[in-house]
Amino acid sequence: MKIKNQDFLKKENQSLVLEIILNQGPISRAEIAKRTMMSPTSASRIVASLLEVELIREVNLISDGIGRKATYFVPNENSVISIGVEIDQNAIRIGFMNFVGNLVVLEHFNYQPVDPGETIQYITNKIRNIINRENITFEQIAGICLGLPGLIQNETGMIKLSAQFNWKQVPLGEMLEEKIGFQVFVDNELKLKALAEYITNPEPEKENMAMIGFGSGVGSALVTKGDIYRGEGNFSGEIGHTIVDPYGIYCPCGNFGCLQTYIAEKFLLAEASKTKSIENIQELISESENKEKWAINILDKAITYAAITINNVVCVYNPDTVVLSGSLIENYPVIKERILEKCKNQIWTPVNNTFELRTTKTGVEGVVVGAAISVQRHFIKNIQFNREV
Amino acid sequence: MKIKNQDFLKKENQSLVLEIILNQGPISRAEIAKRTMMSPTSASRIVASLLEVELIREVNLISDGIGRKATYFVPNENSVISIGVEIDQNAIRIGFMNFVGNLVVLEHFNYQPVDPGETIQYITNKIRNIINRENITFEQIAGICLGLPGLIQNETGMIKLSAQFNWKQVPLGEMLEEKIGFQVFVDNELKLKALAEYITNPEPEKENMAMIGFGSGVGSALVTKGDIYRGEGNFSGEIGHTIVDPYGIYCPCGNFGCLQTYIAEKFLLAEASKTKSIENIQELISESENKEKWAINILDKAITYAAITINNVVCVYNPDTVVLSGSLIENYPVIKERILEKCKNQIWTPVNNTFELRTTKTGVEGVVVGAAISVQRHFIKNIQFNREV
Repeated sequence: MKIKNQDFLKKENQSLVLEIILNQGPISRAEIAKRTMMSPTSASRIVASLLEVELIREVNLISDGIGRKATYFVPNENSVISIGVEIDQNAIRIGFMNFVGNLVVLEHFNYQPVDPGETIQYITNKIRNIINRENITFEQIAGICLGLPGLIQNETGMIKLSAQFNWKQVPLGEMLEEKIGFQVFVDNELKLKALAEYITNPEPEKENMAMIGFGSGVGSALVTKGDIYRGEGNFSGEIGHTIVDPYGIYCPCGNFGCLQTYIAEKFLLAEASKTKSIENIQELISESENKEKWAINILDKAITYAAITINNVVCVYNPDTVVLSGSLIENYPVIKERILEKCKNQIWTPVNNTFELRTTKTGVEGVVVGAAISVQRHFIKNIQFNREV
Repeated sequence: MKIKNQDFLKKENQSLVLEIILNQGPISRAEIAKRTMMSPTSASRIVASLLEVELIREVNLISDGIGRKATYFVPNENSVISIGVEIDQNAIRIGFMNFVGNLVVLEHFNYQPVDPGETIQYITNKIRNIINRENITFEQIAGICLGLPGLIQNETGMIKLSAQFNWKQVPLGEMLEEKIGFQVFVDNELKLKALAEYITNPEPEKENMAMIGFGSGVGSALVTKGDIYRGEGNFSGEIGHTIVDPYGIYCPCGNFGCLQTYIAEKFLLAEASKTKSIENIQELISESENKEKWAINILDKAITYAAITINNVVCVYNPDTVVLSGSLIENYPVIKERILEKCKNQIWTPVNNTFELRTTKTGVEGVVVGAAISVQRHFIKNIQFNREV
């Protein structure tokens, strides 16, 4: 291998060594060379560079039966901070993740995003406050990733459409980058949560994980071979607008019978309001427990459609893992249980036992963690650009 | 780079050089080194090995303005033959593809597969006849790939379920391999056709192509970044059993309202039979052209569901290209035109202009070509195992 590709190879190799230390440290130089299939000289040179910029550090461990000490390498926990931000309907969540994947800060702010500019200003202030309070230096920060529902062009940071906030064609990434000076990424919240779920619950033999979110909207995300499947413009998984009945309920998108009209919270509440005005899903559940026929029927229908949604996602993606998520699943155990029960008799027989079905383990931290992981992945992949190694 | 990975690297590099000569030849040694980012010595060594086993050959071309001759390399057209076989409801199609992707043989046999063993015997005889007739040596043959509808475990060659032939748990790959002695692959026909469509109509800027098949069944396939998305067991894309109405038409699978019950040919004919017994879709079209209300209604409904199917596939996969295929599309222009027309007002607005919608260009050869391409890909990837290079 000669000059032409040396820069590229160098970067690739640096990323590889760093990843191995992150995932498999404490690890020795010899072991790094072995696992990366590099020469000991190359591996040592890269290790030296990583030590120099303090991304890793040495630890001395007893290496063998005779009790000799040997030098091992581990990541330098606080050398890199990745910031994840979730923009939710009634909250902003901000997480600071250190280099070994621990959330060193997780804050929840009650906030109702309305204007994109004001929201960006609010997030900027909160992040600056945390940075000051925690004595974090700007050099530590790898970047920020914002996660929110909607059609998000992740490559440009452009919000094409976020129905929840009624934001259209908003260059959110650019707006925050201008204010705060760090590199900013923007992504769809369910895709980030799926990534968090995949990374924080490693199951090496599994490689196709589908997440389904039931809540204010309905969506899905697919993580395949370690990466988010995005599609042409990062709009994959938008099952809320798959049509299940061409003559069904009218959807604000202009079509009839979109899946979301059968199960998304706001549509359930809208149906309920035809009989009795209620505020939230908990009231709907209470009314059904009080044997109110209308509430029972609305919930029954929603649960049936949630079950067929799981079937449909399984038929399309053929995943080995299906993770249920979203407020209907995470906040209302009774709904979750009924969906899981209904599911048993609704999945197409040939694929019925081909996947593990479970609920999210990342919970309320999911989007923030996924966003931070996404920042760190960019950092590691582009390490040569970020630091003089 | 040292000993540990040399075998692996060698194989990778051989595959890479061969691929470049296949896709970009005639090409010089210097240009191969440049594009593969290898040293001229390594590139020359691999070229020499490929020449030795006659996978490539030299051509002398005038290389510059002064008129000097230089040596370029091209694939040796007939050095490798990949055999693709389609098992269809009323036909077996067999194609022999040479190393540069041309079908040197394409034969169609009227045959109704019933028993798997008999079908394999039939295919074995036909392939042997062609090999003898065409004076092909066993050494030229890279392998065989069978394509058929159903749930096919491509890694084992096992038919988990092919509803069209009523085959369950049939080790089809193994059965043919035992008879014929070549390496045999088995795959889902729509996935193979999608691969053929992607490879034979290269559009480098596009990387997510969805194919939808409307015919005796309904299915989809996704080719992303050059590869078939398979899922856990190669069962992805089985949209025929996505449920569009939990209280819809009963499907033999045991669920109600599976998509296939709204558009697959046999269900359309079954609905028609409640009014008048007809043999095929052409009769249904004729009856509707004769203003028969029942035929008009059945077709209207099928066309509406085909249009929402396209919307649903687009929402889930977010492809940059959607290719329509299958007998309803390929054999009945009037149905195809009506689906395309209906589609215009059925796709979710935010993704409406994000993809190219077209009908298949590979047509009746598609599955055979995709199967042969699949064999050739295996051959190139595993070149070191196949030949002493």
